[in-house]
Amino acid sequence: MGFLCLLYPWSQVCEWREPEELAALLDLELRENGEPQHQLLQRIRDVAKYSVKTNHPRFFNQLFAGVDYHALTGRFLTEALNTSQYTYEVAPVFVLMEGEVLSKLRSLVGWAEGDGIFCPGGTMSNMYAMNVARYRAFPEVKLKGMWSLPRLAVFTSQQSHYSVMKAAAFQGIGTENVFKVKVDDRGCMIPEDLGETIELAKSQGAVPFFVHATSGTTVQGAFDPLEPIADICDRQGLWMHVDAAWGGSVLFSKEHKHLMRGVERADSVTWNPHKMMLTGLQCSAILLKDTTHLLKHCHSADAKYLFQQDKFYDTSLDTGDKSIQCGRKVDCLKLWLMWKAVGSKGLEERVDRAVAHTRYLVEEMKRREGFELIGKVAPVIKERMMKQGTMMLGYQPQGGRVNFFRMIVISPQLSHQDMSFCLNEIERLGNDL
Amino acid sequence: MGFLCLLYPWSQVCEWREPEELAALLDLELRENGEPQHQLLQRIRDVAKYSVKTNHPRFFNQLFAGVDYHALTGRFLTEALNTSQYTYEVAPVFVLMEGEVLSKLRSLVGWAEGDGIFCPGGTMSNMYAMNVARYRAFPEVKLKGMWSLPRLAVFTSQQSHYSVMKAAAFQGIGTENVFKVKVDDRGCMIPEDLGETIELAKSQGAVPFFVHATSGTTVQGAFDPLEPIADICDRQGLWMHVDAAWGGSVLFSKEHKHLMRGVERADSVTWNPHKMMLTGLQCSAILLKDTTHLLKHCHSADAKYLFQQDKFYDTSLDTGDKSIQCGRKVDCLKLWLMWKAVGSKGLEERVDRAVAHTRYLVEEMKRREGFELIGKVAPVIKERMMKQGTMMLGYQPQGGRVNFFRMIVISPQLSHQDMSFCLNEIERLGNDL
Repeated sequence: MGFLCLLYPWSQVCEWREPEELAALLDLELRENGEPQHQLLQRIRDVAKYSVKTNHPRFFNQLFAGVDYHALTGRFLTEALNTSQYTYEVAPVFVLMEGEVLSKLRSLVGWAEGDGIFCPGGTMSNMYAMNVARYRAFPEVKLKGMWSLPRLAVFTSQQSHYSVMKAAAFQGIGTENVFKVKVDDRGCMIPEDLGETIELAKSQGAVPFFVHATSGTTVQGAFDPLEPIADICDRQGLWMHVDAAWGGSVLFSKEHKHLMRGVERADSVTWNPHKMMLTGLQCSAILLKDTTHLLKHCHSADAKYLFQQDKFYDTSLDTGDKSIQCGRKVDCLKLWLMWKAVGSKGLEERVDRAVAHTRYLVEEMKRREGFELIGKVAPVIKERMMKQGTMMLGYQPQGGRVNFFRMIVISPQLSHQDMSFCLNEIERLGNDL
Repeated sequence: MGFLCLLYPWSQVCEWREPEELAALLDLELRENGEPQHQLLQRIRDVAKYSVKTNHPRFFNQLFAGVDYHALTGRFLTEALNTSQYTYEVAPVFVLMEGEVLSKLRSLVGWAEGDGIFCPGGTMSNMYAMNVARYRAFPEVKLKGMWSLPRLAVFTSQQSHYSVMKAAAFQGIGTENVFKVKVDDRGCMIPEDLGETIELAKSQGAVPFFVHATSGTTVQGAFDPLEPIADICDRQGLWMHVDAAWGGSVLFSKEHKHLMRGVERADSVTWNPHKMMLTGLQCSAILLKDTTHLLKHCHSADAKYLFQQDKFYDTSLDTGDKSIQCGRKVDCLKLWLMWKAVGSKGLEERVDRAVAHTRYLVEEMKRREGFELIGKVAPVIKERMMKQGTMMLGYQPQGGRVNFFRMIVISPQLSHQDMSFCLNEIERLGNDL
C-alpha cells in the first residue's frame, strides 16, 4: 500500500498546470523501447503529483470525494484478482457476493425480493432501467426494433440528470420524446405537472411508458415526491424509475430516509455507492422489483461459448446474460468489505454526519454578509482556487439563476473547520471582486 | 503490494466449491455492526483463496489471462487516485494520457488523425460504433428517435461476437435487422455473401448502414478479410466497423499484422488491450477515423454543471461529453505505464510469442492420437478439471460441430511445457471416457 503515501505529502488539492506544460512535464509519448525501473518510478510519482487529490478533505468538486481504506483495500484486491463478473465458474466468490450486496440494497429500498446488477456508472444503470421498461411494455422491440412500436414518451423533471437525454438518444427513442416536468423552488418535481404532461404527450399521439424520478438531483440535491408520483404511475400503468444515484444512501439513515418515502413503490432504482458511500469509482447498482427475470429476457443473447447449458452447476448463477456488457468489472467487493468493516450502523453515521455538516454550512452562510455569489464572479474565484490549489468546488448556472457554487459534502473525515475554511476561502479569493 | 503474495501460494487454478458451501464458507451476510480487523483480514484471505486465479499460467479459460506487473501497478495507482475521466479540471493527467494512448493505437491502425475514447468493455465499444454510424447516416435520430428513420440493416458474420445482437436490441434496431453473413471453414466472413446479403436486405425494404467485421472471432480466432469488405462498404457507402477486441493486438507485430490488412479503410475499430495485452479488466478503446467530432455531436448533452463553457481553460479537453456515461473510470494509465516499461517492441514480442505457442500446441495435437474431443466428453472433462483445479479452459459447440475445447494462449510467462501440460491433462482427465 505504498501508494497511499504518494497521496498525502501535499497540502494542495491540485497542482495546476496548463495542458501544454503538463504534457511536457509528463513526457507522455509511447516509444519503441522500454524504460528502466528508476525512470518508471519517477513517472508514477509525476502522475500522482499532478493528479487532482480527490481524497483530499477540501475536494468538494464532484459527487464523489474522500477515501475509505477498507473500500480501497477491496479495490486493490479486485485488481489483483482480475476477473470478469459473468459466470460462477470464473467468479464464484463475486457472483455470490454481488447477490448478497444487491439483496441488502433492495431490502433498504423495501423489497423482500427482486433483481439487479452492478453497472459501469449511474448513466448505464438508468439506461438499463429505460430499456427493461420498454421491453416490459413492448417485448417485440428486442426482435423488431422501434418500427413495430408507437412513438414512446419518457417523463422526468427539468432538473434530472442528463443521462435521461443520453439514454433516450442512444436507445433510439429520441430526446424530443423526453417530456420535462416542472419543478418547485427547491427543485422537486411537481406531481400535478407530471399528470398534465402525461396528458399532453398523449394528446400528441405519444405513448407514455417511463417516469424517471430523482432522489438527489445533481445540482440542488432535491428529492422528488415519490408517493404522488407512484400514484400517477399506478393509475397510468407506467414504469416508475427512481434515479437515486446520489441520494440513495439516505436509506441507511433512520433520520433521513423519509426523503425517499414511497421508493418501495418504484419498479427500479439506480443507486451509486461510489458517491456518498465512498467506495470509489465505479460502483453503481440498478435494482429491480421484478421477479420474472425481465432483466435477463430483455438483455440475453445466449452465447454458447460462455453460457453453456450443459454445465455441471446451476447455470442460473451465470449472471452475465443479464448485462448488456460481456466482460464486466467486479464492483461489489469494495462495498462488501467496507460494509463488513463498519456495519450498516457505521454507514448510517456517515450519512447523518454529512447532512449535519451541510446544515452547519448553511447556517454559517446565513450568518455571513455578502454570501450571494453572482454572475461572473464564480468563474474567476474558481480559476484562482484551481491555480492556488487550496480547494476544489464546482459552479454552474441553473434555470433563471446565474453562476453559483455547488458544495458537495461527503467524506466522514470532514469537520466543521473544513466547512468554515471553505467559506473563508471563497471570501479570500473573491475579496477584491 | 502485499496482495500479490495472496495469489501465489496455491498451485491450483481454482479451489472448487459448490455454491451453497462457498456461501457458507464466506459468511457473506452484511450486518448492523462492523467487524474487527483480524476478522476482516481473514475475509480478504478467503476471498482470494476461493477466487479463480486468472493470473495462473494454466488459466486458459477466457480471452484474458496472465498478469503484467507494470499494468497492475497502474491499476493500483488508478484506484488510489480515484477520479473520473470527464474533465481536464478533475483528471488533467489522464485526459492528456488518454489522448496519447488513443493516438498511438490509431497510428497502429494506420490513421494519422481521428478520434476515440475508452469504454467499459468491448461490447460498449461496439455499441458506440453502431450508434455513431447511425448518427452519421441519420443525424435526426438523436432528436426524433427511430420513428423518423427507415428500417435499418446491420451486417455481420455468423461467427461474430454476440454484442452485435445486444447492441441492435439495446439501440432499438432489433435483432431481426442484423443480417448474418456466411463464413468459410476457418470462420472468416465470405465477402461475396456480404454483397448478396446486402442486396437481400434492400429487397426486403431495409436500409443498410453498418457492417461489423471481426478481427479475431471469439471462438475460432478468425480474421475477416478486411480489404474486400472495405471495397463493398466503399461502393455501398456503409460504415465499416472492425471488432478487433481480441485480435487488434496483432497490429503490434510486423510478422502478424497482415491478418488485419485493410483495417485503415475502416471507419471505426474496437480494440481491447485487456485481452491479449494483459492490462487487466477493463481496458477497451473505440477508435474512429472521423475528424469532424461525430462522437461528441452524437453523444453530447451539454450538461451545464460539468461542461461549463466559461471555464478558464480550453474546454475541448473536457472529453466527457463524447461518452454516453457521465462518470467514467480511468482505463488508460495501466496500458500507458506498461507500454512505457516494455516499449512497442516488448509488446510485439509478446504477440509473437503467444502465436508461436499456439502453433506448437497445434503441432503437438496433430502428433497425438485420439485428440478429437467430441460431444458429451468435453463437459465431463471440464467438470473433473474444475473440481481438481489443475487448469481451466472452456468448451462450446459451434455451427455443425459438437462440443470442443477452446484454448486461449496469451501470457508471456507461458512455456512449451505449459502447452504440453494442457494436452497431457486433457488426456489424463478423459482417459476412461
